[in-house]
Amino acid sequence: MVVELISVGTEILLGNIVNTNAAYLAEKCALLGCSLYHQTVVGDNEERMEEAIRQAIERADIVILTGGLGPTKDDLTKEVTAKVFGRKLYMDEHSRTRIRDYFEKIKSKKVTENNWKQALVPEGAIVIDNLNGTAPGLILEDKERGKAAILIPGPPNEMKPMFEHDIAPYLNKKQPEGIYSHMVKVCGIGESRAETMVADLMDAQTNPTLAPYAKTGEVHFRVTARACSEEAAEKLMGPMIEEMKKRFGDAVYTTEENVTLEESVIRLLEEKKMTVTTAESCTGGKLSGRLLNVSGASGVYNEGYITYANASKEKILGVKHETLETYGAVSEQTAAEMALGAAKAAGADAALSVTGIAGPGGGTAEKPVGLVYIGCAVNGEVTVREYRFTGNREKNRDYAVARAITLLREELLKRA
Amino acid sequence: MVVELISVGTEILLGNIVNTNAAYLAEKCALLGCSLYHQTVVGDNEERMEEAIRQAIERADIVILTGGLGPTKDDLTKEVTAKVFGRKLYMDEHSRTRIRDYFEKIKSKKVTENNWKQALVPEGAIVIDNLNGTAPGLILEDKERGKAAILIPGPPNEMKPMFEHDIAPYLNKKQPEGIYSHMVKVCGIGESRAETMVADLMDAQTNPTLAPYAKTGEVHFRVTARACSEEAAEKLMGPMIEEMKKRFGDAVYTTEENVTLEESVIRLLEEKKMTVTTAESCTGGKLSGRLLNVSGASGVYNEGYITYANASKEKILGVKHETLETYGAVSEQTAAEMALGAAKAAGADAALSVTGIAGPGGGTAEKPVGLVYIGCAVNGEVTVREYRFTGNREKNRDYAVARAITLLREELLKRA
Repeated sequence: MVVELISVGTEILLGNIVNTNAAYLAEKCALLGCSLYHQTVVGDNEERMEEAIRQAIERADIVILTGGLGPTKDDLTKEVTAKVFGRKLYMDEHSRTRIRDYFEKIKSKKVTENNWKQALVPEGAIVIDNLNGTAPGLILEDKERGKAAILIPGPPNEMKPMFEHDIAPYLNKKQPEGIYSHMVKVCGIGESRAETMVADLMDAQTNPTLAPYAKTGEVHFRVTARACSEEAAEKLMGPMIEEMKKRFGDAVYTTEENVTLEESVIRLLEEKKMTVTTAESCTGGKLSGRLLNVSGASGVYNEGYITYANASKEKILGVKHETLETYGAVSEQTAAEMALGAAKAAGADAALSVTGIAGPGGGTAEKPVGLVYIGCAVNGEVTVREYRFTGNREKNRDYAVARAITLLREELLKRA
Repeated sequence: MVVELISVGTEILLGNIVNTNAAYLAEKCALLGCSLYHQTVVGDNEERMEEAIRQAIERADIVILTGGLGPTKDDLTKEVTAKVFGRKLYMDEHSRTRIRDYFEKIKSKKVTENNWKQALVPEGAIVIDNLNGTAPGLILEDKERGKAAILIPGPPNEMKPMFEHDIAPYLNKKQPEGIYSHMVKVCGIGESRAETMVADLMDAQTNPTLAPYAKTGEVHFRVTARACSEEAAEKLMGPMIEEMKKRFGDAVYTTEENVTLEESVIRLLEEKKMTVTTAESCTGGKLSGRLLNVSGASGVYNEGYITYANASKEKILGVKHETLETYGAVSEQTAAEMALGAAKAAGADAALSVTGIAGPGGGTAEKPVGLVYIGCAVNGEVTVREYRFTGNREKNRDYAVARAITLLREELLKRA
C-alpha cells in the first residue's frame, strides 16, 4: 500500500519550523508496512493544496495530511480535501460538543466564534476525536477507487497521540503484513567502524533488513522484518540480532527502541545497588542533566557538582593545587582527582568527571579546542580517557556527555 | 523569483532523519527575497527524482536540490539533473585534485575508487568548491528559459557553509530587492498573550511584516522589510521595532537574531560585574548547562550544585532540616533557602534555585506533576516564583530552565 505525506502550513514551507511531523509519520508508516515515495510541503494556499492532493491521490493509495485544521481563515485542509473528494461539509454535533467542553473545562473560557468551523465535517468521513486539542482528525474514503485521505492536526502533541491511538490501527487493518523491528543500539564505537563491522548484513537482500542511524556518540541499527505475526517476525529477527551481539559484544546496550543510554546506565546502577555522582567543568551540567532525564534516577544519584573555576575544583573536589599548577585543569591528572574527589564528597560508589576545552576560545597548540578528559571512578579505582573532538562548542559538549555515560557503563560492567 | 526545494535522500523520505536542511534553506531563501511555494522530498530513485526536477523547473525559476552528491551508487542527483538539462558529464581536473587533497590531507588515507565520480561535472555548470567535504556544489543554468538548478551536498556541515559562501551571493545577484529582518525576542510572556499584544501589527498588510515564532518560554517576532538597501530596510523596520519595545517593555531582551536569552543574561552579569551560581533539583543540570552554553561565561560563573536529594540540599546549601520537614522539598520556602544558600556557598552575587516535580511520577493532589518553584537571590534579597507546567518530564524541565533564566534577568534589571 502506497502512502504519500503532505505537510500543510506556511510556517513549515518558509522554514519557520522544522518538519518533524513528516519524519515521525514516515517512520511510522514504514513500520506499518506501507511504501512511501513522496513527501510534499505546501503553504496555506487553496490552489496549490488542491493540486498537491490531486497529484497525491493519483499516484498513492493513501494521502496523509497534517496541519491546516485549526480555526483561522488560513486553515483550509479540510475544505480542500472535501472538494477533491466531492463531499459537502455538515455540522457534526458530537464534535461541536467536544469543542465546547474543551474550552470550558480545560481552558476555562468561552469558545471564540471561529473555533466552531472545526466541527464541520465532510459527508461520510470517519471522525476521530482529538484528545489533546480542538480539531478532530478525519478519514475520507473513496471505496470505489480504493483511495483514502487522512487528515491530522499539525501540532505534534495532538498529532502523535491521535496517530498512535486511531490512525495506526486504521492503517494496520488495511495492510495485512506488518513490519516489526528492534533497534540494536551500540555505544562507544564510531559510525564508520560500526557500519563496516556489519556491512555484509546491511548489503544483503534479506528479510530482515538492517539500517544504520547515526546518533551523537552512538550508532543505532534498525533490524526490520516483514511477517504476518509478531511471533513470526521475532523468529526472523532473532538470528540477526544474535549475530550483531556477537560482533559488537558489550557495546550493545539495548535492543529496545525506547531505551536510552542513560536509562540503561541508571538501571545498571540500580541492579548493582550503587550510587553515582558527577563533577563537570566544560559540559557545565549537561551530563548530570542527561542522567537525570531518567525517571527514578533519584535512587542512584544524590548530588553533583559544576566545578567551572579551578578554585572550585580545589574547594569542592579536593583537587590538589599542585596538580592544577603542574598539569593544568584540562589534564588526565586533574580529571582523575576530580572523579575520586567527587565520589568522596558525595559519598557515592561511582563518579564521572569531565574537564576540557569546548571552544570556540581557550585552545592552544598543546591543548587545542576539543580536547577533553573524562574520568570515571568506580569503588575507588579511577580510569581516565582522552578525547579530541572536532565539532563546535555545542557538539563537543554533547559528544563529551555521550562518551562519559558510555565510559561509566563500561567501567560498571568491568569493575562492579 | 520563485524557488522550489527538493530534498533528496531515502533516509529523509523514510523518516530516519528529520529534514532540517529544508527549514534552513526555506528561511534563507525567504530572507533573500525569493518566493517559495513547494518543498518536496524524494528518495534515491532515478525516475521519481527526474519527475520531481522536471515538475519543479516547470513551475519555479530556481530549483535547489540537497543530497545525493556522494560517492555511492545511490547518489544520483547530479546525473539526473544533467539529464533534465541535456548536459553531458566530463571529468573536472580541478575537482579531482581537490578530492585527492581532501583525502590525503584531512583524512590521511587513499581515495577509494568510488569517490572519483564526484569530480564528474555537467558541461557548462558552475563548480562550487566544497570546503568541508568531497562533493562540489553545482549550478546548472538554462539561460534561454531563465531557469537554474542548484545542487548542494546533503550533510548540514557542508551545505550551510556552501550556502552562505557561494549560493546566497549567487541568489542575491539575481534578486535585486533584498529582505532584511530583525528578530525581536520576548521572554516571560506566554505565546497567546504576546501575539494578542501585537495582533494589529501582525494583521496589517505592511512593509515591514511581523511573524511570530513560539519557542520554549519565549516568543520571537521576525520583523521583515523588503528594500533595495540595508539602510532603507532599517528605516522601514525602526518604527515597528520601537512600537514593540514600547508594548513589551523590558520583556524584549534582544533584536538580534543570534543572541540567545542565556547570552543576554551572561552579558548583563558581565556589565554589572556580578557572579551567579545555580542550585538545581529537578532540572538536574540543564539550567547550568544552558547558562554555560555561552562562551565566556567563566567570567561570571564559578561553581554550581545539583542538589537532587534532600540531604544534599541541607549539606551543600544549608537548607534547614525543619524547612524540609515542614514545607517539603518542593516549596517556596525551600526554593528561597536554596537560592540564598547557593549564593553563600559559591560566594556569588546572584543565585538561581529550582525545585519541583518534573514527572511522570512524584505528584500528589497538593503537589501535582509540573509544580516548580524557582528562586532568585540577588545581593542577598530572594524572590520565589511558583509555576505549574503541563508538559511531559522533558518539557517541564525545559520550561523551568527558561523561566529561571528569565527570572534572573528580571531581578538583575530590577535590583542590581
